[in-house]
This record gives sequence, structure tokens and C-alpha cells, in this order.
Amino acid sequence: MSDDRPDNLDRLFYPKNVAIIGASPKSAGFLWGGNTFIEGMINCNFPGKIFPVHRNAESILGMKSYKSVLEIPEDIDFAIFSIPQSAVLKVMQECVEKRVRFVHLFTAGFSETGREENIRVEEELVRLAKKGGIRLVGPNCMGIFCPEGGLAWSKSLPSKIGSVGFVSQSGQLAGHFTGTGEHHGLSFSKVVSFGNASDLQCHDFLSYLAADDKTEIIGAYIEGLKDGRAFAEAARHITRKKPLVVWKGGQTEGGARATASHTASIAGSTDIWRSLCRQLGIISVNSLEEMVFTIIGLQKLPLPNGSRVAILGGAGGGSVTMTDVAETEGLKVPRLSEKTISALEQFVPLEGNSVKNPLDMMITLLDKKNFLKTMELLRDDPNIDALIFSQPVHWSHQVGGRAFMDMFIQMTYDGMKALEKPMIIALEQTHTLDGVVIRREVFEKYNAAGIATFPSFQSAAQIVSTMSRYQVFLNDH
Amino acid sequence: MSDDRPDNLDRLFYPKNVAIIGASPKSAGFLWGGNTFIEGMINCNFPGKIFPVHRNAESILGMKSYKSVLEIPEDIDFAIFSIPQSAVLKVMQECVEKRVRFVHLFTAGFSETGREENIRVEEELVRLAKKGGIRLVGPNCMGIFCPEGGLAWSKSLPSKIGSVGFVSQSGQLAGHFTGTGEHHGLSFSKVVSFGNASDLQCHDFLSYLAADDKTEIIGAYIEGLKDGRAFAEAARHITRKKPLVVWKGGQTEGGARATASHTASIAGSTDIWRSLCRQLGIISVNSLEEMVFTIIGLQKLPLPNGSRVAILGGAGGGSVTMTDVAETEGLKVPRLSEKTISALEQFVPLEGNSVKNPLDMMITLLDKKNFLKTMELLRDDPNIDALIFSQPVHWSHQVGGRAFMDMFIQMTYDGMKALEKPMIIALEQTHTLDGVVIRREVFEKYNAAGIATFPSFQSAAQIVSTMSRYQVFLNDH
Repeated sequence: MSDDRPDNLDRLFYPKNVAIIGASPKSAGFLWGGNTFIEGMINCNFPGKIFPVHRNAESILGMKSYKSVLEIPEDIDFAIFSIPQSAVLKVMQECVEKRVRFVHLFTAGFSETGREENIRVEEELVRLAKKGGIRLVGPNCMGIFCPEGGLAWSKSLPSKIGSVGFVSQSGQLAGHFTGTGEHHGLSFSKVVSFGNASDLQCHDFLSYLAADDKTEIIGAYIEGLKDGRAFAEAARHITRKKPLVVWKGGQTEGGARATASHTASIAGSTDIWRSLCRQLGIISVNSLEEMVFTIIGLQKLPLPNGSRVAILGGAGGGSVTMTDVAETEGLKVPRLSEKTISALEQFVPLEGNSVKNPLDMMITLLDKKNFLKTMELLRDDPNIDALIFSQPVHWSHQVGGRAFMDMFIQMTYDGMKALEKPMIIALEQTHTLDGVVIRREVFEKYNAAGIATFPSFQSAAQIVSTMSRYQVFLNDH
Repeated sequence: MSDDRPDNLDRLFYPKNVAIIGASPKSAGFLWGGNTFIEGMINCNFPGKIFPVHRNAESILGMKSYKSVLEIPEDIDFAIFSIPQSAVLKVMQECVEKRVRFVHLFTAGFSETGREENIRVEEELVRLAKKGGIRLVGPNCMGIFCPEGGLAWSKSLPSKIGSVGFVSQSGQLAGHFTGTGEHHGLSFSKVVSFGNASDLQCHDFLSYLAADDKTEIIGAYIEGLKDGRAFAEAARHITRKKPLVVWKGGQTEGGARATASHTASIAGSTDIWRSLCRQLGIISVNSLEEMVFTIIGLQKLPLPNGSRVAILGGAGGGSVTMTDVAETEGLKVPRLSEKTISALEQFVPLEGNSVKNPLDMMITLLDKKNFLKTMELLRDDPNIDALIFSQPVHWSHQVGGRAFMDMFIQMTYDGMKALEKPMIIALEQTHTLDGVVIRREVFEKYNAAGIATFPSFQSAAQIVSTMSRYQVFLNDH
């Protein structure tokens, strides 16, 4: 790929140097601004040169500061604007003169305000950039987070390099996604917050991530598409080789109105969106949590061969309601085969248990021999494609402390191997602080072993359902 | 109400004495059993006498133990069976001889097994009891929790007396409900786990709670109804004077199959259930969390006059997606009146904010004057019935520590008064342990002031929608 093609974004994600225009000699406090970008880059070990630019500062965060980009003694790959809206046209003119390759505008106050004069400034900005051969990210967004390239808009973004790409029209949700994702064990290749998308658009970033070897799974939050056809084309090239998980904002009447105020987007019809997802194999999600855990599932679990699940870990009413949740999510909770049922009845007491599916037999399964036997029976049961195992973490800890918990986890590992079908683990929520701590410990043990866990039975069921539908798409295409 | 009518359940909830048949001289470990009932009663300060019964123990938990109920030197109001299934008919015969008034069977292994011989034992049990004038709770359930009467099936149940009644076919969910509810600030008048409902049924308990002055709101988890007409009749008498919130298990095909294994219930048609709820003003919920927070909302918030909400606390994409969530939950997020918008534009900067609804202007609102002014504008806005305020608790704490948090909470109190419409507060989730602790502190401050908070924007939106529909039902009936 030639580095000089205008649609090659390599230098955007891996610039040799960056000018931060509107860095400040004063602390920004809790607000975002030029300095938070510098701090983010330092935290991500940016390997190139950082050039702070400020009208009259001599130095910023210990670095020499420049009065304008024109003063910088090197060619500039990438400039970030964190300046008043009223100054952007003048500064863009300077960047054109300086032959900067990429500009990201953190600055807001353009078409998203709905005001004629602000819309015109955005149009003029794009015109100037285009004439000067500059590609734009934004305006009105957080820009680029690429830990490998050393770019980040905040020091709170994780410096660990991973394989999840994320493209977001909203900076807030890009930040929430990386924060929530990191907490649950994800790390990232490239994250883009692209705001008003006045030049570079969602499909440009998606196409880049599609070709990017460092990115294995792609997530996106989008509000509206300026070029639906280009988006569909980009998606079509992704979904057969990498999962593409999209959260579409503005799917309701009020939400669509809100997208206009946020990023000047036209949200479009929900029906068209849904049918597009079905046709193209886009995995559609409806919340940040669903986005994070769908990606975790796709990254760590094998795709199930079908949607028929066994359910384990509930008791009584919990078993009934888990079954309702699973079937509401599109799964089937079939009766186990007669062979499995009779085999289970050999060692599970009749009173207080149920072995037909859902499986209500947790006490019996605390004996490892019984647990492995059960996994083998489910492995051989032709009615079952996957097992959802809701683990009563806090209860286990109350019963037998950490030693018991560790036995339970080890038993789960062994059972997973014996099952030879996807086992999806939900860690039951607890209320007490003690419970939160124990649950986190258990999460970390599983996570260190590369095993996905889900925050609720509902989340686990949703992911299995999503993954089995994606398998159907892959089979059909 | 005469104490001698067989349908008077006063002595079930407030017995003068209780025989625990199957209490044990050995510790039960982590399993439920006779002793956990005794421990629960002691924890709830049972004011009467407890008589442990065991075949050959001399004393149990420091109390004199009896070989059989027949040996107890007093008339017995209430006996709890925690004995092997094979012994129940003999012990029931003794209770008949002893003229016990109420029996609860913790013992399982009856019709829920689906086996002919076990079903026959349950039928014989009911026949014996009926002949002897004994009313039965269960079998296959946890029975009665009534902190005022001093009854509880575990010492982990809260001894605090409250006004929430709960009737549950599942003991596990009754336990989860009380635990989760307590954690979020609820306390209870009477909770019943009624299992197979071989004699006393859901509608018997509902009718009792309907007439019970100590119970202001009633929740229920049910799997199937043996007498749908009686249930409807009981519900009809409740919903106009007290909210009745019902979670129906077995609403899917697999779930319905599971109810049969759990409590031998026929789950019935989901369509009929839904239309019954609409007709009778039953508030239908679909998860434990929704049950808990619906009850909290009904207990602590005024009913809104309509379903048009303002949304505050999001930024950018968060505002858009909150709006989607609200409208998906059945609310409307309308544009504010032009008068409100122009007034807000007087003091909210254009760049990076939005004042049309959803309101994306959190930084401006950190000034108390601006916050109160905004609440007054929403109070006077004819387009708005309620405000959902999503509070970024952890962020606020990071910005300004506890002092800032306290200012924020005080500002919320004052704003709530100024608004004069329901303000529904969601406390944003956080990941870190630090965040969990801060969030809990903030919850406790609001809870101590009698202010409801909700665990997510989605939960808050769901509750407003539910409450506005209940207001419509009350208006129409």
C-alpha cells in the first residue's frame, strides 16, 4: 500500500510527529483539552515528536512551545486542534501552508448546532482542507486512540495494545467503551471518535480497520451515515472475515432528533437499518454493555453450532426465569435426551432437583466426579449446542471460602474441556462490597486463563444467541 | 374479622407458638433445614414459644426438644415440616390429632417430580389436613417471613419491619427479592413462599395482604394459577387501592416446561396473562431487578401525569442513546417548549451543549443557580411530565471529592423541590471498587432522605413508563 495515497490512513494512526494546537500552559482541570492529548500520548509512549502550539506560551508540560505550526522546524504528519471555534479557519490556513497531512478537530460548535453561520464555518473548513490535501477527523470529537502508534486523548486510556478496533461517532461513548472494555479484559488496536465526519467518514475508518492485520474484531457506534452505500460496501468486506458489531444511535423518534443536535446526523429508518444488518451480517447491539460483552464473546468463545442450550446453576424459580430469559433472547432450552435424563437420574437425588433442563442440581455438582460426568453427558446429548453456566460466586465463597472457590474454578476448567461445546459462564451479581470483591477476584482468575465471563445470565444468553446467528450467516455466505 | 374463620391467616403470620418438626441437634452447614427456621425466628425476635421436634434429640439450639408434636404440652398454632418426604403422612396425622392450625412443608418431593406415587402422597397430605381442619403452606417452599410476627426461614432475612408484601411460588426468588430489596432500601410486612400451593394458594395470600393495613404495596412471583378466576378476583380488589406488581415465570415454551418440574404448575398462555394484566391494572415485570425497582418507584415517587420526560446528565452520544432507551421503554422525549429553549440559551454556551432535550449541559449545571433556574423552566414547560436525571457519581467524585458530591446532592434536593414534577435519579454504574464504594455512599445519602435512586438510566426510564401507565389505569377506573 503506498504511503502517499490520500486514503491511506497509516500516518494518522502512526504519525512521526504531532502538533497539539491549543495546548495550554495552565492546567485544564477536569476538562478535556490540548494537554489531555499530550498526557495521553506520553502515557502511550508516543515514539515520535510532540509539538505543543500556543499563541504566547514558551513551554508546555516541559516541552518547547511554538506560536504557530508555521514555526515548527519539521514537516507535520498530524495536527490536533483544541482551540476556540472562531480561530479554526485561520489555523487551518496555516496547516495548509505547512502541508500538514491530517488534522483532527476536538473543537466543537459547527453543523451540530443547527445554526447557519456555524454550518458555513464547517463547510469552509472542509473546502480549505481539501484544497490543501489535508484529511480531517471531526470536528466535534475526541479523535484517535491507537496505543501501538502512541496516540490517545487522555492518560486514562489504556496503553496496552490489543486487537479490538472501535469506530464511534461519539467521543463519550468511545471513552466509555474503552473504559468498560478494559475493565472486562479487552484491549484495543485502534479507536476512532469521528464526530461530525465532515471529511473522513465511518466507512473510511471501517475500511482501514478491515485491512488492518492488528484488528481482529470491529465495533462501531454510529448515529447517521452520510454515505449509506459506502458504509454497506465497507461492511460487506468486513463481516465475512472479521465480526462487525454496531450500536446504532437514534433508532427512536426522539433519539433521531437528538442525533441532529449531537453530530448533525440524519439517523435514517430503523427498518432499513435492521434489514441492512441482516443482509450484511452486521451484529446489531443496543447498549454499551451489550457491545462490550458481544465482543468478549466473539473474541474468546467458539461459535456454537446452534441455538439449543442447557442451563445450569439456577434453582427452582431461578431455573424457570433463566429459561424464560434464554428463550426471550432467541435461544431454545429443550428437554435433554431421554438417555441423558436417565443417566443423570442415576446420581442426582429426586427431591429438590430437576434434571430435564434447566438443570437444577447444583449441590450434586459440587462433587467434581458428578460435574465431569454431567459435562460428558451434555457433550453426547444431540439436543444441546452449548451450556450456559450461571455461577453463584458469592454463595460458593460463603460456603467454603477461597479454597472452595478455587476448587470450583478448577472444576469449571476441567468441565469445559470435557464438554467440547461452548460453555458460557455468567457470574451472578452480588450486592455486598464483600461480594463485589470476591466476584472481581473470580473474574480475574478466569480472565487470566483466557476464559470469558458475563455479568448476568441475560448477558450470557444474549451473547450465545448473537453468536449462533452469526454462525448461521457465515454458513450461508 | 373472626379469628376462627378457616380463611383467616392471622395466626399463620402471628402465631403464638411454632413447632419445628425436623429441627436437628447437628449443624445443618450451608443447607436449609429446621434449624435455619429457628435461627430466623430468633433473629426476628419471635415473641412466642418455639418447640423443636426431633425423633431422639433431648435439646436443640439450647431449647428442650420433643419427640413428636403430641408431646408438646400446649396447643400449637403453626408447625413447620423439615423432614424426609417419606415421613410426612405420619407426622401430618399427629398434627391432625394435635389440632395444629397451620402446617408449612419445607419438605419437597411431591407433585413437582411428575411421578405418580409422589403426586399421590401430596393428595393424601391435603386430604388428611382438610379433614383435620389444618391449612397448608406448600409443600416444597420456604413458607412465611413476617418480621413483625417474628417468623423467618433464615437469619439472613432482615428483621426490620416494612410495608412491602411479597407472595412467591419460588423460595429462591423470595429470598433473592428480600435480599436485593433490603440492599436497595426496602423492608417488608409479609413475604410468602408457597411452592406447590396444594392448599393455600396465591389468591389466598393476596387477599390477606389486600386487607392487611401493614402492607402498602404487593409484589408476586407466580408460575401457574390453579384457580385463575380467584386470582383475578383477588387482583381486582387490590389494584385500585394498592399497586400489585407481578413477575410471571414460564412465559416461554421452555420456561413453561420448567415450571412443571419446579412447582408442578401449568404456566398458561402469555397472551391471556398480558390481557389480564391490562384489564386488572396488574403491573407486569420481567426480572427480579425490575420487581425491586418498580416497587421502590411506586413507594417513593409521585405518579407522573404523563409519559413525556426531559433527560439530563448525558453528553453527546450518551444523550442520544438515553433518548433511544427512554422511547423504547414507551416514554416520549419531546423537544422542550420554545420558551424554555430560549431561556436556557441565555446561560448555556452553544458549543458542546444542547438544550432542546435531551439536555446536554452538565458543566453549566454545576453552578447551583443555573441548576435551579433549569428546574424552574422544566416545571413551567407544558411539554414535560417528569425529569430523568442520570448522575455521573464517580466522575463528580473524581472532579471534586466528597465535598463536591455533597454539594451535588444538596443541589439535587433543592432542584427536586423547585421542579414540582417527579425527578427520577439514576446513579451511573462504575467499574472500579473505588467507584462502587462512592456510589454506595451516595445511594445511602439519598435513601436516608427518602429519595429513590435507580441503578441505570434504563431502569429509571422503565419505572417512569410503568408508573405513568399505572396512573392512566387509576384515572380510568
